Amino acid sequence: MLINKSNKENKLNKMFNANSIAIIGASNNPNKTSYQILKNLIDGAYRGKIYPINQKENEILGLKAYSKITDIDGGIDLAVIVIPARLIPETMKEMGEKNVNTAIIISGGFKEIGNYELEKEVVETANKYNISFVGPNCQGINYTYNNLCASWPLITAKGSLCIIAQSGTVAATLGTWAENEGIGATGIVSLGNKTDLNEMDFIDFFLKDENTKVIALNIEGFTNGKKFMEIAKNNKEKDIVVLKPGRTEKGKKVAQSHTKSVSGSDVIFDAACKQAGVIRAYSITELYDYSKALGLLKKPKGNRVMVITSSGGSGILATDIFEENYVEVVDLNPELSQKLKAELPSHCVVSNPLDLTGDTDAYRYEKCVNIANEYDDIDMFLLIFGDPIPNACNVVSSLKEKVSKPIIVCYLGGGEVEKEETLSMHRNGIPVFPAPERAAKAISILSRKCKGSD
Amino acid sequence: MLINKSNKENKLNKMFNANSIAIIGASNNPNKTSYQILKNLIDGAYRGKIYPINQKENEILGLKAYSKITDIDGGIDLAVIVIPARLIPETMKEMGEKNVNTAIIISGGFKEIGNYELEKEVVETANKYNISFVGPNCQGINYTYNNLCASWPLITAKGSLCIIAQSGTVAATLGTWAENEGIGATGIVSLGNKTDLNEMDFIDFFLKDENTKVIALNIEGFTNGKKFMEIAKNNKEKDIVVLKPGRTEKGKKVAQSHTKSVSGSDVIFDAACKQAGVIRAYSITELYDYSKALGLLKKPKGNRVMVITSSGGSGILATDIFEENYVEVVDLNPELSQKLKAELPSHCVVSNPLDLTGDTDAYRYEKCVNIANEYDDIDMFLLIFGDPIPNACNVVSSLKEKVSKPIIVCYLGGGEVEKEETLSMHRNGIPVFPAPERAAKAISILSRKCKGSD
Repeated sequence: MLINKSNKENKLNKMFNANSIAIIGASNNPNKTSYQILKNLIDGAYRGKIYPINQKENEILGLKAYSKITDIDGGIDLAVIVIPARLIPETMKEMGEKNVNTAIIISGGFKEIGNYELEKEVVETANKYNISFVGPNCQGINYTYNNLCASWPLITAKGSLCIIAQSGTVAATLGTWAENEGIGATGIVSLGNKTDLNEMDFIDFFLKDENTKVIALNIEGFTNGKKFMEIAKNNKEKDIVVLKPGRTEKGKKVAQSHTKSVSGSDVIFDAACKQAGVIRAYSITELYDYSKALGLLKKPKGNRVMVITSSGGSGILATDIFEENYVEVVDLNPELSQKLKAELPSHCVVSNPLDLTGDTDAYRYEKCVNIANEYDDIDMFLLIFGDPIPNACNVVSSLKEKVSKPIIVCYLGGGEVEKEETLSMHRNGIPVFPAPERAAKAISILSRKCKGSD
Repeated sequence: MLINKSNKENKLNKMFNANSIAIIGASNNPNKTSYQILKNLIDGAYRGKIYPINQKENEILGLKAYSKITDIDGGIDLAVIVIPARLIPETMKEMGEKNVNTAIIISGGFKEIGNYELEKEVVETANKYNISFVGPNCQGINYTYNNLCASWPLITAKGSLCIIAQSGTVAATLGTWAENEGIGATGIVSLGNKTDLNEMDFIDFFLKDENTKVIALNIEGFTNGKKFMEIAKNNKEKDIVVLKPGRTEKGKKVAQSHTKSVSGSDVIFDAACKQAGVIRAYSITELYDYSKALGLLKKPKGNRVMVITSSGGSGILATDIFEENYVEVVDLNPELSQKLKAELPSHCVVSNPLDLTGDTDAYRYEKCVNIANEYDDIDMFLLIFGDPIPNACNVVSSLKEKVSKPIIVCYLGGGEVEKEETLSMHRNGIPVFPAPERAAKAISILSRKCKGSD
């Protein structure tokens, strides 16, 4: 049976916005993945109905357990399957009887270990019963705006970043960083074997998702690279950042053996990304940093940055990275210099970077940004707080409301004050980086996406 | 008066091992730097005597305050000066009377703002009274093995890493990271204007310090680059990692204006580093990561790594970085493959990277390292824990005792388990990195320092 596009779209909507979930293979053993998923749904304050399914238990984590999915009275929007691989086709039959047609198959034991036969049987059964599924051999999905963490670890912070990853670990890592920093995510998808639903289905979904501003992709081999580039190129609204390993010969060999798919030349992929406006990341850290900046900031008009810092040394470090990445640390307009000098203590170094020196408070930054914001030859600001400077969050949050140019923050060397201010800024949608090189590289990506750069 | 080398050495010893400290300009105002330094000495459990000096207060933070340093009965090993710049020469005279001949001048207001006259006066006074000093315009020093944090933020964790930085912020940042991760430091020095004591004096001291294994340097302009390279080259015991900005034209211009010193060509500096065996870092993160790996690990015999992972995707990401950085992800010896296959579940992918898959526990890693350790064509191990895997610390700590090859860990996507295991491993002297690219780059540095590479 062929599944047409709108059918699939409806099913993805049903999956992410599920009002009821069955955990097939739920367990009372805290060491089992199925226990962890159930617990995360509960701890994540999922508002829909949850039905644990286990033939031996009466109750799991305080919820009534059922022997089979067909024993449940109400309807089920989504089944999460965590049982031995060989039992899955039979379970899918029962899902078909109960008219449950979306699933996440967490269980491994298929193609990835050479078990092609069983994987084929699962596909055939799914087709017969009109079931669309994520995985198998995956780490589940998370949709924070529905409090739905059918995955691990528990991620609940809502944001504007969507993560779609072939590697469950990469998905979990980005999700954890977004959670810990307080910037949050919209959705997190671990693709696994991509036997049925693949990256294109989820990209389609999240391009339409109103909370998502940026899609962070980790793909070892694209299901349909050409189609991906087409969609990326036609998409004018959201940013896509991709981490695709296999750049080196050895890396490519390992990737192909891992995903059982052949991937093309990296040079061609790179050129296609540039043409389609897809940002490439070369590490998990870059994937995260670039997505964070793109997800939280408006686009600058050009590539000219003004750096305002309390730490001269950090300003120099940022300058090198800017220069190496085609961002201009623009010479200050003489009129602007004069205005700044008139407002600042005489020991401040009025230049770009503008060194407010270690005795600065947050309000000195505010004054400078307000003055410099008037000048058209500055496209964006990097504010480096290199000491424990209180009220940074208040000041930058208020600047963010008034100033038309993007503002990126680097906060370091600030001890406990830094921790508090950084978390508050992230919660207010201000991207903060822990080192000048990371802030400067993120800005270089932002400036590549500046208005008029296409 | 000329100060000879052994005199200086004695004074540095007295400074770091001070049994008594006077804080000149101590304050009861929590917003003042002098308050913070006094508090950090107390909170850091400094065991010597502390004398706050303030003309208006009787008591500061529970300690008796003195009007002048000459009012103190006992001897003073070190003075920390945090008073307005213009008052410093007079204070130095009093120090001279009291025979206090080491100081840290935190106060700014000298050369860095064009006040060359006052800086000259301070030098002359110091020479007259045989005083050696750090700074001015600096963030102090910290020597964890003497519980002496005459700086901020408070760093107390003892380790094998020494940090000497021209930028107070870079010093504070590295110190904070080392403290938060639990790897600790030996000393942290913020050089400031380097008017008297400069990087060479501290490098001399820490090359002789028995707890120090690696020196992390952040220098904008070397006082004597040639001498530095000579000493680095003659040093066979410890590693030196240097972050020197000003690589680009603009960066160099900014660095020269910041430090009021002329720095030479970056290409020449780079070649000199290679010749002297100095490792170059290009960002604060690299400076930290490389120093951490070098400080905690023995040197490998060569550049061939075996990767053992629970996350196939992370293994591929590491492979690319290795290949790009001249580390060989060596093909497994057929005999070794056979032995591993005999011991591992059939779904594990026996190759390099060795994919233990998501169902692994820590003991599967132990088994593999014990087997592979016998093979001479493997020089080091990267263990990637890409899931919440308990007991990782126990296993790696016990391997560390038995296995002759260096073991680096990457732990990611492991939620709360990851946090606990990572901290425990750091406390046990095992370097753990939060992303495969950072672990792989640190390994590439380690392998450049492998035995026989000189």
